Amino acid sequence: MTETSLRDLALANRLLARDGIVDDFGHVALRDPADPARFWLSRALPPNRVTPADLRRHGPDGTCEDPGAQAYSEAVLHARVFAARPDVQVSIHHHARPLLPFTLVGAPPLRPVFHTGAVAGWDIPVWDSAPFGDGGMLVDTVEKADSLAACLGPARAALLRAHGAVVVGPDIATAVMIAIYMAENAAVALAAGATARPVPSLSRGEAAETARRLLTPNTVARVWAGRVAGLEL
Amino acid sequence: MTETSLRDLALANRLLARDGIVDDFGHVALRDPADPARFWLSRALPPNRVTPADLRRHGPDGTCEDPGAQAYSEAVLHARVFAARPDVQVSIHHHARPLLPFTLVGAPPLRPVFHTGAVAGWDIPVWDSAPFGDGGMLVDTVEKADSLAACLGPARAALLRAHGAVVVGPDIATAVMIAIYMAENAAVALAAGATARPVPSLSRGEAAETARRLLTPNTVARVWAGRVAGLEL
Amino acid sequence: MTETSLRDLALANRLLARDGIVDDFGHVALRDPADPARFWLSRALPPNRVTPADLRRHGPDGTCEDPGAQAYSEAVLHARVFAARPDVQVSIHHHARPLLPFTLVGAPPLRPVFHTGAVAGWDIPVWDSAPFGDGGMLVDTVEKADSLAACLGPARAALLRAHGAVVVGPDIATAVMIAIYMAENAAVALAAGATARPVPSLSRGEAAETARRLLTPNTVARVWAGRVAGLEL
Amino acid sequence: MTETSLRDLALANRLLARDGIVDDFGHVALRDPADPARFWLSRALPPNRVTPADLRRHGPDGTCEDPGAQAYSEAVLHARVFAARPDVQVSIHHHARPLLPFTLVGAPPLRPVFHTGAVAGWDIPVWDSAPFGDGGMLVDTVEKADSLAACLGPARAALLRAHGAVVVGPDIATAVMIAIYMAENAAVALAAGATARPVPSLSRGEAAETARRLLTPNTVARVWAGRVAGLEL
Repeated sequence: MTETSLRDLALANRLLARDGIVDDFGHVALRDPADPARFWLSRALPPNRVTPADLRRHGPDGTCEDPGAQAYSEAVLHARVFAARPDVQVSIHHHARPLLPFTLVGAPPLRPVFHTGAVAGWDIPVWDSAPFGDGGMLVDTVEKADSLAACLGPARAALLRAHGAVVVGPDIATAVMIAIYMAENAAVALAAGATARPVPSLSRGEAAETARRLLTPNTVARVWAGRVAGLEL
Repeated sequence: MTETSLRDLALANRLLARDGIVDDFGHVALRDPADPARFWLSRALPPNRVTPADLRRHGPDGTCEDPGAQAYSEAVLHARVFAARPDVQVSIHHHARPLLPFTLVGAPPLRPVFHTGAVAGWDIPVWDSAPFGDGGMLVDTVEKADSLAACLGPARAALLRAHGAVVVGPDIATAVMIAIYMAENAAVALAAGATARPVPSLSRGEAAETARRLLTPNTVARVWAGRVAGLEL
Repeated sequence: MTETSLRDLALANRLLARDGIVDDFGHVALRDPADPARFWLSRALPPNRVTPADLRRHGPDGTCEDPGAQAYSEAVLHARVFAARPDVQVSIHHHARPLLPFTLVGAPPLRPVFHTGAVAGWDIPVWDSAPFGDGGMLVDTVEKADSLAACLGPARAALLRAHGAVVVGPDIATAVMIAIYMAENAAVALAAGATARPVPSLSRGEAAETARRLLTPNTVARVWAGRVAGLEL
Repeated sequence: MTETSLRDLALANRLLARDGIVDDFGHVALRDPADPARFWLSRALPPNRVTPADLRRHGPDGTCEDPGAQAYSEAVLHARVFAARPDVQVSIHHHARPLLPFTLVGAPPLRPVFHTGAVAGWDIPVWDSAPFGDGGMLVDTVEKADSLAACLGPARAALLRAHGAVVVGPDIATAVMIAIYMAENAAVALAAGATARPVPSLSRGEAAETARRLLTPNTVARVWAGRVAGLEL
């Protein structure tokens, strides 16, 4: 595993944390190119604190090869997704808030509603941990991980009922992009779906007069001055 | 006017900008204690850039006493509110987003829905510029400002139809607090009012098992470690 | 009380402020291990400014033992919760916005709707100050605090009608985690419950073609470059 | 092209990125005053990273005149808008989230609902790429760009179905202001339109008593102290 790859894997944790895709939990796994049955994953840490030194190699059943590290109980999720999907090099598990309403029983399917939102694909399956019992919500056994991988099938993402999502991709940056825009797509779908009643507007005349008076050099310059505050090139 | 008062007036602009009460527009006026028919207001500037040096005295009809300054056309709003309300020392005009839905024709009245939201009062009148014609949305004439002041009456705040709000108070900090919590109250009322359907929950057993497994020393410590990142005492 | 505990108590105020659980008000109380009828609480301060030097010991009736300090009128809330619940070491009172809609009369119960949201428990009682009269919304008397503690019962949290919440736990980090994820859970429930109509999607063909063209090395690299800006490991 | 203009064009990218109008994509084009059939546009870069050195001149058919640069496939959009609209000096293409629900089939027209929201105009046409086939969502051919320019007509903005918006103006600051307030207007319309049910309020007595007790010097000073934290004049 190259130093660059480990650095990018740590950066992926940080940027997904900053942009609200992972919260205190959530993780990113990278298949080991030299030993494709194994993969790299942070020891159990808040994603906003992960550094390259925190990354550990894990085996085909999800076991962390560093016995001294506190490991994620859901590492097996990535192990079985890598086993089922040779095309996948990166697997992300997260709980981005805008996705969660689409994971609930009875929710409409999460379809792409705007252009960039298409990256996660048309058919996003929803996996349910309920058959594994009340203590089964985490994907922490080979049996559950295999069930989830089967539900994922050839898709780029799956939702986990009342829990979160798994996103996969051929490299770190692609999987990160899919995770981000899948969540953005869900946020737009939520906002659009909340429309419940018509909204009164300005009159056509009010709108015309108001725009004419606002779009003057002084006013426009004031907006510009306020908005560039603190920006550096 | 003391240096402290002018500094606090500038700070009020800055904090209301940072906390989203004023946007590129919006302003805060402070009555001159030595000459109560006059008041202090920034020259026309983005609120996030106002300094004490930008504050100017304005006369009873809202005219800026510094002929070289670009002045707010709505300064007269404050002038006539100060004239009508001897108890008021500070007048804020803004367009905080959560308030705007409550300014629209047909909207429900903006009532306090939670404890701190009570500071703006129970009866918040809504003033409509429509009788003044299509070019009349800004409160930029004595006639409109008097009409608005009459609508405000003894209240601590008034809404302006499809435009924003006026908030008044006996000092800068009180008016700022009313402006902030009136907007917070509106945001809570919007969120509560958007509920359109029941939401399925975890089963009782899932909830119990999940909580038991999450509330362990390791997991709790992980959340704490991520959340204190960057904090200094 | 150890220096570490006092430092953590101050940090809890800061992080809850930064993450929007407490606003200008709200506070965190820690039982004194050496004298379990007493507890530590900040003097009345904005939570984002609390330091260890601002913490004061309070007695069994909620009285601050430092007569010179401005104390919280709701300190008695914590006193009576500690009295009723020997298992509780930490009590947080706050007004996190996503919870407030669930405190209103007629609102659905706040149930866990996603995995981590389970930490606050299945049954979250709602206490109503209305029987104590119009001036009774604050929990500032022994009588009200005892009523609230009885309503809380063995639960990890209670809602206060049109006011906020009380969250309790066995240590600072656990109580903080419950407070955060209880609010996150409420936010997801609000978003899910606002769905009012179906949303049109891209066609299946549009989605496929769009994804194919977006998931190219150049485009993916552009997203990565923008998103890592400013991150440091 | 002056150095100031190029610097302002780069700043426009940065501020629109910081304020959420452009995301990882989106761009701002400026007509060349010395050669009005040509225009300046960043090479394909995340908007939050654009500097003046990244700007390139493009020809009348949208071709980048620097063959070594990676160019935007949608540069032609700006080329044909400039050709159709001699009054336009600046063209912005973006995907601001609050606009997207109004681009969907069956959505209500995006009308101005509050004062400043009027700057984008009353009639905002919606262009649909569907006639150009499943791979046609990007405006990356002369034919599509001419179709969009025809749909735009004399307006200040057009929406693109399930994709985003084009905003035009006579100079950089004006186009930026229109883009910002058009998105703000959409956000207010979404919030207002999500209202689905009445919300219970405090009783009139509770509200009066609560306000009386909150608007005291100590409490007001506490809010002020918390809110000015970190502000500098």
